[in-house]
Amino acid sequence: MYSNLKLPQGFKCAGIAVGIKSAGVKDMALILSETSASAAGVFTTNQVCAAPVKVCREHLKHGTARAIVMNSGIANACTGAAGMVAARSMALESANVIGCEPQEIFVCSTGRIGPELPLDKISKGVELLFNVATGEQVQETAEAMMTTDTRPKVTTAEVQIEGKSIQIVGFAKGAGMIEPNMATMLSFITTDAAVDPQALQTALKKAVDLSFNRISVDGDQSTNDTVLALANGASGNAVLTSASADWDVFSLALNNVCHELAMMIVHDGEGADKFVTVNVTGARSDEEANLAARAVANSLLNKTAWAGSYPNWGRVMDSVGYSQAKVDEDQVSIHYDEVQAVAHGMRSNVPQEELIKVVSQTDFAINIDLHLGEGKATVYTCNCTEEYVRINVT
Amino acid sequence: MYSNLKLPQGFKCAGIAVGIKSAGVKDMALILSETSASAAGVFTTNQVCAAPVKVCREHLKHGTARAIVMNSGIANACTGAAGMVAARSMALESANVIGCEPQEIFVCSTGRIGPELPLDKISKGVELLFNVATGEQVQETAEAMMTTDTRPKVTTAEVQIEGKSIQIVGFAKGAGMIEPNMATMLSFITTDAAVDPQALQTALKKAVDLSFNRISVDGDQSTNDTVLALANGASGNAVLTSASADWDVFSLALNNVCHELAMMIVHDGEGADKFVTVNVTGARSDEEANLAARAVANSLLNKTAWAGSYPNWGRVMDSVGYSQAKVDEDQVSIHYDEVQAVAHGMRSNVPQEELIKVVSQTDFAINIDLHLGEGKATVYTCNCTEEYVRINVT
Repeated sequence: MYSNLKLPQGFKCAGIAVGIKSAGVKDMALILSETSASAAGVFTTNQVCAAPVKVCREHLKHGTARAIVMNSGIANACTGAAGMVAARSMALESANVIGCEPQEIFVCSTGRIGPELPLDKISKGVELLFNVATGEQVQETAEAMMTTDTRPKVTTAEVQIEGKSIQIVGFAKGAGMIEPNMATMLSFITTDAAVDPQALQTALKKAVDLSFNRISVDGDQSTNDTVLALANGASGNAVLTSASADWDVFSLALNNVCHELAMMIVHDGEGADKFVTVNVTGARSDEEANLAARAVANSLLNKTAWAGSYPNWGRVMDSVGYSQAKVDEDQVSIHYDEVQAVAHGMRSNVPQEELIKVVSQTDFAINIDLHLGEGKATVYTCNCTEEYVRINVT
Repeated sequence: MYSNLKLPQGFKCAGIAVGIKSAGVKDMALILSETSASAAGVFTTNQVCAAPVKVCREHLKHGTARAIVMNSGIANACTGAAGMVAARSMALESANVIGCEPQEIFVCSTGRIGPELPLDKISKGVELLFNVATGEQVQETAEAMMTTDTRPKVTTAEVQIEGKSIQIVGFAKGAGMIEPNMATMLSFITTDAAVDPQALQTALKKAVDLSFNRISVDGDQSTNDTVLALANGASGNAVLTSASADWDVFSLALNNVCHELAMMIVHDGEGADKFVTVNVTGARSDEEANLAARAVANSLLNKTAWAGSYPNWGRVMDSVGYSQAKVDEDQVSIHYDEVQAVAHGMRSNVPQEELIKVVSQTDFAINIDLHLGEGKATVYTCNCTEEYVRINVT
């Protein structure tokens, strides 16, 4: 799927099976920059957060990175002091193998909360990963990141800066426990652009707000969410800052990469087979529009109705009504794609069949206008099927 | 089931089929007081609310009631001006038949959002209900209130006040779109006690906070939630106020009736087969304890794990962590009933089998201690099964 893709210049990666997940399933990955790269990171806002997230936050203070080392299968969350020792040891061993300071290693874990990391396996894995990494193992790396994901998630962008071609390659994983701020997901973005660390952090935060923080699968925020961006400057451009002429070109490309990865996560939502875009306009503020869109996107009754291809706009009205956004019932209009379901808070004259046609598609939008102001927001979500329940009974 | 029950003195009721739901299924009910009764009511906080809720709010200003007239099958919500005309007309026609002022009639609807009430059927129904009502049709009345409920819900209490026996009989419906403040549910409580209307309102509000506002099925707040209490004084006691010697006896009985009805709603949660009590203690305040308990109760991942009889305490930690309650991960302990799953934010030494035993029961508690203060709260909820999705695809 991604076997023809290469990482940006000066990056190598690898994905291997070390026996954390069932035998032979890839569960450990490395993304390595040959030189010290500018680093940026955005993390879960959950007060209960995994040991590797805590370690990443510490290391990010230094602003540079040589490598991301990650495992899937075990989240190393709720593991106390032993978990911190494991995460630090994962970073230290990697630093020894790579030949850098531990704070230049970012460690990530995703999987079940509670169990401890098998440090012997991790330790062997680090060495093997370093030995086999090349610039061309994008597919293997993306596979090693997966948990309940049904497919690996990678996207790329190329932009011209100072006449130089800059590559961006982004990875993501995530399918359940997805609710922004942050959405269980990991994403790693590599670029050969030279970028000032602070500027990169600002750009990444903004890109995440417009992408990963706009999606929802099940309304559960995870303990491990992490987005990391590494910019190693191998392309030879002058270091980009927010004052650079080409700054917008770069940050737009970063936004696009994050957006595409976020959409891949929703498309791969656990048990989901429909992608739903919830657009709210006419709110008193963008913030209130966001609250209304999230209430609609997270309503279990909306998600199940979408699973049934049933245009139950009454449930959409209901969820807008209990959102914390100001709503004047008589002002609300709702369209399913371009087909009007609700006018002035009541059923439109459009025949039900037309609405059923829209909601029977695998990809459609719910467009809600509150008619109270200029605020607008979009949230991307998916339906909730019996399969979601089956996946999550353990 | 409730065929031997009688209403309190001076009350009559009836439940009949008028053709709003499928043929022969009861869909309209009347609860009638022979004399003017003190009335109290608590309603949905959803900004999108049904026409009958708006009419009830108006009528409640007068503080007295002769009757509650309700239909199931259609919610009369999102029906605009026509819906208000229908709700007022339902009250007016009932007042004409009964011989009272329209503001002494409380109208309630529950069912699908969007369609308009068939006024001809309602009109014939009102007359028929009045003609057939007796003190003994508790079962029929409770059945006529049902939508996705699998069983009617009635409870009773008897207390001695001034040496007189006071009866309380409460009805409820609700199984889905259940999330407090208020939780799609209706509840009607009748008593032959004489109670001052303001005191009754205060007592009802408090009882609702301790009962219906403590339950959650799916986190969706409805447009029609209504709890009404009618006290007609037929038992002949001196009018109770909050200063009366027997006030606590009465208000405790009211609390108990509301609590039992609320528990019946959770036990009948759509598709659910497990009843879960979420207790949070040690929060900085009762309010924060409530936020944490609700986050746990409403997490789809917790609900599906309970469906799988899987003691996934990591998801409980996760949801406590993203709640708006202050949490110090290392302080948290979690017990499944009396079996400790988490100590100091980490897995306890208790074998997994012991936890599986608890979560395999049809009724168990998740006891979470945040160890930060004296705040505590309890929320009652249920699991989420594939059957919930099947029920709600339309």
